Amino acid sequence: MKAFMDKNFLLQSETAQELYHEHAAKMPIIDYHCHLVPQMVAENKRFESITQIWLGGDHYKWRAMRSNGVDERFCTGQDTSDWEKFEKWAETVPYTFRNPLYHWTHLELKTAFGIDKTLNPENAREIFDECNEQIKNDPKFTPRGLMEHYKVETVCTTDDPVDSLEWHKAVAADPTMKTKMLPAWRPDKAMAVDNVVAFGEYVKKLAQVSDTDINRFEDMMDALQKRHDFFASMGCKLSDHGIEEFYAEDYTDVEIADIFDKALCGRELTEMEIRQFKSAMLVRFAEMDHASGWAQQFHYGAIRDNNTRMFCQLGPDTGFDSIGQFTTAKNMSKFLDRLDSQGKLTKTILYNLNPADNETVATMLGNFQDGSVPGKIQWGSGWWFLDQKDGMQKQMNALSLLGLLSRFVGMLTDSRSFLSYPRHEYFRRILCNLVATDIENGEVPFTGYEAKRVKQMIEDISYNNAKQYFGF
Amino acid sequence: MKAFMDKNFLLQSETAQELYHEHAAKMPIIDYHCHLVPQMVAENKRFESITQIWLGGDHYKWRAMRSNGVDERFCTGQDTSDWEKFEKWAETVPYTFRNPLYHWTHLELKTAFGIDKTLNPENAREIFDECNEQIKNDPKFTPRGLMEHYKVETVCTTDDPVDSLEWHKAVAADPTMKTKMLPAWRPDKAMAVDNVVAFGEYVKKLAQVSDTDINRFEDMMDALQKRHDFFASMGCKLSDHGIEEFYAEDYTDVEIADIFDKALCGRELTEMEIRQFKSAMLVRFAEMDHASGWAQQFHYGAIRDNNTRMFCQLGPDTGFDSIGQFTTAKNMSKFLDRLDSQGKLTKTILYNLNPADNETVATMLGNFQDGSVPGKIQWGSGWWFLDQKDGMQKQMNALSLLGLLSRFVGMLTDSRSFLSYPRHEYFRRILCNLVATDIENGEVPFTGYEAKRVKQMIEDISYNNAKQYFGF
Amino acid sequence: MKAFMDKNFLLQSETAQELYHEHAAKMPIIDYHCHLVPQMVAENKRFESITQIWLGGDHYKWRAMRSNGVDERFCTGQDTSDWEKFEKWAETVPYTFRNPLYHWTHLELKTAFGIDKTLNPENAREIFDECNEQIKNDPKFTPRGLMEHYKVETVCTTDDPVDSLEWHKAVAADPTMKTKMLPAWRPDKAMAVDNVVAFGEYVKKLAQVSDTDINRFEDMMDALQKRHDFFASMGCKLSDHGIEEFYAEDYTDVEIADIFDKALCGRELTEMEIRQFKSAMLVRFAEMDHASGWAQQFHYGAIRDNNTRMFCQLGPDTGFDSIGQFTTAKNMSKFLDRLDSQGKLTKTILYNLNPADNETVATMLGNFQDGSVPGKIQWGSGWWFLDQKDGMQKQMNALSLLGLLSRFVGMLTDSRSFLSYPRHEYFRRILCNLVATDIENGEVPFTGYEAKRVKQMIEDISYNNAKQYFGF
Repeated sequence: MKAFMDKNFLLQSETAQELYHEHAAKMPIIDYHCHLVPQMVAENKRFESITQIWLGGDHYKWRAMRSNGVDERFCTGQDTSDWEKFEKWAETVPYTFRNPLYHWTHLELKTAFGIDKTLNPENAREIFDECNEQIKNDPKFTPRGLMEHYKVETVCTTDDPVDSLEWHKAVAADPTMKTKMLPAWRPDKAMAVDNVVAFGEYVKKLAQVSDTDINRFEDMMDALQKRHDFFASMGCKLSDHGIEEFYAEDYTDVEIADIFDKALCGRELTEMEIRQFKSAMLVRFAEMDHASGWAQQFHYGAIRDNNTRMFCQLGPDTGFDSIGQFTTAKNMSKFLDRLDSQGKLTKTILYNLNPADNETVATMLGNFQDGSVPGKIQWGSGWWFLDQKDGMQKQMNALSLLGLLSRFVGMLTDSRSFLSYPRHEYFRRILCNLVATDIENGEVPFTGYEAKRVKQMIEDISYNNAKQYFGF
Repeated sequence: MKAFMDKNFLLQSETAQELYHEHAAKMPIIDYHCHLVPQMVAENKRFESITQIWLGGDHYKWRAMRSNGVDERFCTGQDTSDWEKFEKWAETVPYTFRNPLYHWTHLELKTAFGIDKTLNPENAREIFDECNEQIKNDPKFTPRGLMEHYKVETVCTTDDPVDSLEWHKAVAADPTMKTKMLPAWRPDKAMAVDNVVAFGEYVKKLAQVSDTDINRFEDMMDALQKRHDFFASMGCKLSDHGIEEFYAEDYTDVEIADIFDKALCGRELTEMEIRQFKSAMLVRFAEMDHASGWAQQFHYGAIRDNNTRMFCQLGPDTGFDSIGQFTTAKNMSKFLDRLDSQGKLTKTILYNLNPADNETVATMLGNFQDGSVPGKIQWGSGWWFLDQKDGMQKQMNALSLLGLLSRFVGMLTDSRSFLSYPRHEYFRRILCNLVATDIENGEVPFTGYEAKRVKQMIEDISYNNAKQYFGF
Repeated sequence: MKAFMDKNFLLQSETAQELYHEHAAKMPIIDYHCHLVPQMVAENKRFESITQIWLGGDHYKWRAMRSNGVDERFCTGQDTSDWEKFEKWAETVPYTFRNPLYHWTHLELKTAFGIDKTLNPENAREIFDECNEQIKNDPKFTPRGLMEHYKVETVCTTDDPVDSLEWHKAVAADPTMKTKMLPAWRPDKAMAVDNVVAFGEYVKKLAQVSDTDINRFEDMMDALQKRHDFFASMGCKLSDHGIEEFYAEDYTDVEIADIFDKALCGRELTEMEIRQFKSAMLVRFAEMDHASGWAQQFHYGAIRDNNTRMFCQLGPDTGFDSIGQFTTAKNMSKFLDRLDSQGKLTKTILYNLNPADNETVATMLGNFQDGSVPGKIQWGSGWWFLDQKDGMQKQMNALSLLGLLSRFVGMLTDSRSFLSYPRHEYFRRILCNLVATDIENGEVPFTGYEAKRVKQMIEDISYNNAKQYFGF
């Protein structure tokens, strides 16, 4: 029996251990998609408590606690203390065996705090106190301190076109900052005509921040282009789009202009008008990204805010989202084909949330690989609910079988937390173990030229591929 | 090479063996969803032959035989003898390697009859005679005898609201009965307006049995409420609904009343009217269950009676059903959200038939966990075609990764047969092996506090969780 | 660590090795579905170079090269030499670790050329020269030579009803030909009314070749029946249909006749008319196959020609197809039920491209197994993108759990290449390892009667089942 989470955690053979310890572990981290708050990096304030870090905004943990019968007061309540919340979390932890939270929790305790204990109700107070003591005294426990501790070379945040990027500017101008923090372009609100009122307000904000009168559709596009140029000037290299499914309706420019006018007047749109508008926006965004040489990312397939009661109480991103069922292959193909036909398809990363779509996405890539960039069309690493051992394995296995694992740009945290970087370690261990298992079984060679290639591949997927692909 | 189906069947490590033999095996059985015939329990007649027990109504075995080229006469025919049918089954058995039937067959031979041989054409007659001899002579071979033999503490049958529950009454009044047999509420026919003629007849029966004049929709609801109260008085703790997909159309009370009137007049309904009516009924049933504190179960996703020719010949539930493809996530969410918004969402168990929906369902749970009951929203154990090793493993793995395995209410047989209880053993062995594999690999700790928690978890999933969740 | 691809490649236990070497390996090959060019077999010309064999038409390899950043000139270009193309492929090979191409490439090098080296840029020239030397000098490197080398007993090509089958005639008349080459009936174009112009042209060709005036729908059916009879006279035993999804709309004969008239006049059809016509044709084709006692195959679920730019440049089947998402279970059922109801359902093989449909298809079989033929309704072996280790394992596991693995007709190459026969070896190794793993774990018995049955099952799936099922 292997000891729990020892040095060779998840590494089931000596080959796996060699690949990880001698190749994967030494590579720096590029976290090319995350949700860190730039202001926190700029201000670099010390954290106040382990509860703040762990339970302040982590909807994964809240979900687990609610599932375990913990009252909402101890998840998001204002009337419960840091200790009370931590205590309830510590009670829940031993009920999360086999859930990634169990591993993440202990990887974070170990790699950030040097604590090798397994958290449970009996030692909860002790661990709470020890973590808080360290947080209070060790300068590592700041945003920048943790990024340096985990050898994070580059992070890309997720930013709205109307964002001033002031905190990015501040950080970029700070010579003491060792990690490169770049913005990423997430213009979801500019196509969210489902809610015409919110859309109208967004257009006003966009007009303001871009110093552009927006009366017609093309005015909005001009304003967005200005912001796109500004993001590029700030080092932005990639965009991101959160969509339920791919939109690829037919439309004319006149139709889109009319839909825009109607939306701006606050008149409700039909379902088809909404789809047409989103179809047009996806194309226009993609054209901008192509012109700038950025990579574009698409995260599709979630059903968000399923719980109306809790949405009213807590707002979005509080743990009430789940995996949807969208039959989007033909539209995904049509969208990518439209761009490719015009020579305007830029580097693209597709993330699906439903693992039932894995093979569909894995085989979509090959339709648009044009030989111009290795792995030009990428399949994103296991996203959200799939960001765990089984999800990662399935993604890497299907990518291996249906495409080229060797060209994979690898892991990202997608996280709001400065303690999430051990997930790169988790990913790399799983990667090394997968490849090593094939080697052990005689399915991948590991002598001479091929041994060197295997080792290089591990280092590439851990770091080099992303560096080269995004051009950091 | 392990011997076939020995003491440590499916238990691939010492840890697995310890977890199973010392923890899982000793727990009694709660079979909270099955299709036993209450009259058989009440009358407790001795079975007549192994053919009657095994082949009398087991559509799994008939399917395997038909696939193996066996003529229908030997499956369901009236003109073939018990021995002839058994012989054909024995010929088929060695063609079922790797199918759960192979394991079930031999688990039943072993645990009920003490026969360790593997059934095949060479020993078919010998085993046939030995089983029949035992059935004739050993009082264990009655419904109650078998339930006691397998330490079955509680079973919940599946009953129509119009059922008199007379056999439940008889059993409840019998002091010699050791297993608790409770009814469960399955009102599918009260929403089956697809066939207005059958629906009309059902409403008449309901009126009669509830002593209620049913002229309008709310009359039917009153009648159903009376029956619901009666079921509750008989110890019923849970309902069950067999649906193709979740129905969550918008509707008004007036519309539903009109649809009901139309159906009762025997006029065909439109597709949308049918969906609206079913949507309304699902909500009303759920409200009743919430008021009574019951758990509600939903089994969705089958395509039934695919073979018209055989349906005409043999009727339903004869082995001509299969796994459907229903895109129901948004409706499932809308339905649950409607109830949650009104504070009327009771404990709920969701069963999907298509494993491609696994992660969708597994993540749906978390949207409605409200902290009031641990594991309030449950994902049902591998159902029907998925009630086998791979199906169970996938369900438990996805539940572990996307929810809390520790709060799982575990196994049920869903069976018509009194010999199906070894499936609980099968499930528990698989559960223990899964958890032990993680322990062996250093992915779940197994020392101190955590070792105790693991062992407790095994006992909980085997028995305690169901006992507590349903309130038996 | 096992050596790469040694004698016991993919065989992880002694039992697996015994099953493979003593039972599977010795069986001849029946390749009942492939895309060989009959003319090449008839003319039996020696191949010119390894590049011609490997890269001349292999869209799997082109896809991998494009994904690896290789320019189209080196995939399909006319201005690059055989060596340049081979060199680029050799550079790509070490980037295909874990992809089936890596295994196929080395199985082909080993079993056809006796080369045990792993191909990479360092030895590319040496291997290129050695292969070409052998191709030049060894008479094995002809179509027939390779078929004999791989013990191929029977192949079924894929032929259009209008095909003259002249090359089949030539081969059948040649006493030196050792492999039986039979035509198979693929009438896709006779139902392709999506494109009425191409359809009109096809009907003209059909009229000509069948010497039939085609003015009305039933004329076309008469012509097709003549061709069907002709194919039967040439030894054809099975048909094949490539469809996106199953079509099972309601229609009348009058409607179909009208749709045909409209199409023949070159008038565009509505979406529903197209579906109705295809629904009718599927039924009519199936009736013909039933009357002739053929087996019918359905390959469904691809999205073809996703890349318009490359389609214009290279045409179909050049590596721009992918896995679709089609919700076709109810239609598949309705189609099969229509035939079964009339007693006209012949032996049928269903192939799905999306593995998310696996369990749906696996359970569809049982609905129409009627006991007349063992395994009458078959689930085809992992098709196209799924023709790899994981795809085969999933197919065989689901078939085992939900049907009868023992009655499986097994492997086919679906290939255009005379070097693809090692894929039968690949399949058999995987099969033996799967079954042996269950034996090792005590889940399948391996003594006495059962050991004999296991060994027989391996031989049956490798060869006997196909021989018996198709009646070769």
